[in-house]
Amino acid sequence: MDTTIPGNEPTPSVQIDADRLEANITAMASSTRARGVALRPHAKTHKIPEIAALQLAAGAVGLTVATVGEAEVFAGAGVEDIFIAYPLWVDSAKGDRLRRLAAVARITVGVDSAESATALARSLGAAAGEVAVRVELDSGHHRSGVASGDAAGVAVAAAKAGLRVTGAFTFPGHSYAPGMPSTAARDEDKALSQAAAGLRAEGFAAAELSGGSTPSALMGGTATELRPGVYVFGDAQQWELGTIGPDNIALTVAATVVSHHRSTAGEPGHFLLDAGSKILGSDRAAWATGYGRLLEHPEARIVALSEHHATVQWPAGEPLPARGTRLRVVPNHVCLPVNLVDEVQVVRDGAVIDRWAVAARGRNS
Amino acid sequence: MDTTIPGNEPTPSVQIDADRLEANITAMASSTRARGVALRPHAKTHKIPEIAALQLAAGAVGLTVATVGEAEVFAGAGVEDIFIAYPLWVDSAKGDRLRRLAAVARITVGVDSAESATALARSLGAAAGEVAVRVELDSGHHRSGVASGDAAGVAVAAAKAGLRVTGAFTFPGHSYAPGMPSTAARDEDKALSQAAAGLRAEGFAAAELSGGSTPSALMGGTATELRPGVYVFGDAQQWELGTIGPDNIALTVAATVVSHHRSTAGEPGHFLLDAGSKILGSDRAAWATGYGRLLEHPEARIVALSEHHATVQWPAGEPLPARGTRLRVVPNHVCLPVNLVDEVQVVRDGAVIDRWAVAARGRNS
Repeated sequence: MDTTIPGNEPTPSVQIDADRLEANITAMASSTRARGVALRPHAKTHKIPEIAALQLAAGAVGLTVATVGEAEVFAGAGVEDIFIAYPLWVDSAKGDRLRRLAAVARITVGVDSAESATALARSLGAAAGEVAVRVELDSGHHRSGVASGDAAGVAVAAAKAGLRVTGAFTFPGHSYAPGMPSTAARDEDKALSQAAAGLRAEGFAAAELSGGSTPSALMGGTATELRPGVYVFGDAQQWELGTIGPDNIALTVAATVVSHHRSTAGEPGHFLLDAGSKILGSDRAAWATGYGRLLEHPEARIVALSEHHATVQWPAGEPLPARGTRLRVVPNHVCLPVNLVDEVQVVRDGAVIDRWAVAARGRNS
Repeated sequence: MDTTIPGNEPTPSVQIDADRLEANITAMASSTRARGVALRPHAKTHKIPEIAALQLAAGAVGLTVATVGEAEVFAGAGVEDIFIAYPLWVDSAKGDRLRRLAAVARITVGVDSAESATALARSLGAAAGEVAVRVELDSGHHRSGVASGDAAGVAVAAAKAGLRVTGAFTFPGHSYAPGMPSTAARDEDKALSQAAAGLRAEGFAAAELSGGSTPSALMGGTATELRPGVYVFGDAQQWELGTIGPDNIALTVAATVVSHHRSTAGEPGHFLLDAGSKILGSDRAAWATGYGRLLEHPEARIVALSEHHATVQWPAGEPLPARGTRLRVVPNHVCLPVNLVDEVQVVRDGAVIDRWAVAARGRNS
């Protein structure tokens, strides 16, 4: 088993399969191109300029990020078109940072209320027209965003405050559950269409309509732009949702078997891996089978997770892998492990060929 | 509300109340001294050399850590006695690192099998006797560790391999549930007593018996040393378990209200804070009321958490706090947020008086 994991790197460590990464990037670029929609990948998943460069080279129109800090990292790496898809509350300090960003890149931010649009314009001052805004819609995820019927009202308030309104966006996050991707895509279509009609009625020019989660990205028909993030790596959630199979998962956490726990009468044994919540993250959806999956052992279950221990339940009757064995763990939600390490190893043909810094790690604000 | 949170720092950010931190450190030091047991705090909670220095100045005999990487950071900061309370699998690379550590500090590591003891001794080579080992016991948490009756067997194998066995340890992690701390403390007493008897029968000298989680730390009667970690900060789990009240919680995440979600008929409204799983961590015990608590608003519930959003349910009928309001979030499990930021702000008398680097952040291996 040792030989399936390249390098004698200390475990746990994050490894990226370069061939799979490139194939995932190419496939999404081709699919969106074939549908005639723009691709603006969400970079919060990878936080790595080298991966952003691959996405842009494959035809992405720009990047999506979640925070001003992430935008600063990617603009610093030369990305020229960045959408901060978040309902920012912009005070004067953040206004200063946005102004500096707008001097080097095309910057768009989300707004979901007249109040936040007004605060944004006030903090930008004379530069208000240099930052584009899109109105966020709640298409069914019920997190941020306004009802689609209220989008025009927010747009009018934003325009009145001096901002340049270029469209609307939504995150159909309710797609992240079994059987939900197509429902979420329909909800997204409806919300974007209604918002577009409202914007037209108020005299706004042809709107950018941005949508798309990884599960629902290619199911809708209204968005002019899609923002999937997880598709570059895949993860156990996508595997269990049926969106990305184990053969396409590009990011794993290499871990070592450190302890065996004796089976008791009638119960299967378990063993411990040295990867816990401090590298895998502890997200676990209600429908998940565990705290991640083992790439080569889909029958195993990660039944508990501590900070530095994953408890793996092994099929009854099968001998536990020897202590010292290295195994690959597929995290449940891949956006978290990347944010827990400073560096990832890039693997091709069984060897570590490069190391990439997670340059936007921890840029939460 | 803004005035309750010092500084105009961008949110989200981790803030530590210096007075409460010092009081927590002093109280645990006094309690363990009064009971005549050694205190060896678990530094995986804070990962900060400045806090380790306060703990040692208050009388701690040394530190506990979870990984070789954490030990390297604290040894580098001058800590002279470090216990890696983890069932390490030590290959030659890790053996080299342990040898270097043992040259500058007193190093103890955990073992929970003859196999891992043998691998450790082999990797240390001629330096096997320079690293002390303690046998890990499973006292009821059922994660790592051997049954107390098997401890002597592991100790004999370790001694035969050339290692210096100095005692036994256990983590009564099943204390982390309502009503369980006293049960876990009793289980710990029993496991440590049985292991000590076994070690005596095999001719080992007076053993170091190490135990103690934050909930159960002061309830047992057998341990000669306790290793609580969370007590320095407290968190929402300890608050809800009744171990550490809101007046003693020393670490919070400052966050800003960024969005309101309209209430629908009969339902309370909710709002969003800009702190999500990428700064709070996403641990949530089955018995927790939510994904963290608001320090000054115990009646509020954090009902959902995304990477950059906390969804806060506000009591029905009460007006939502205005967008732009800053609030303090108490994370569920404080060991995770510290591991998500590079720096914490130290606050006293309403002002940021210092910034500490989280020097051991991300040292997972």
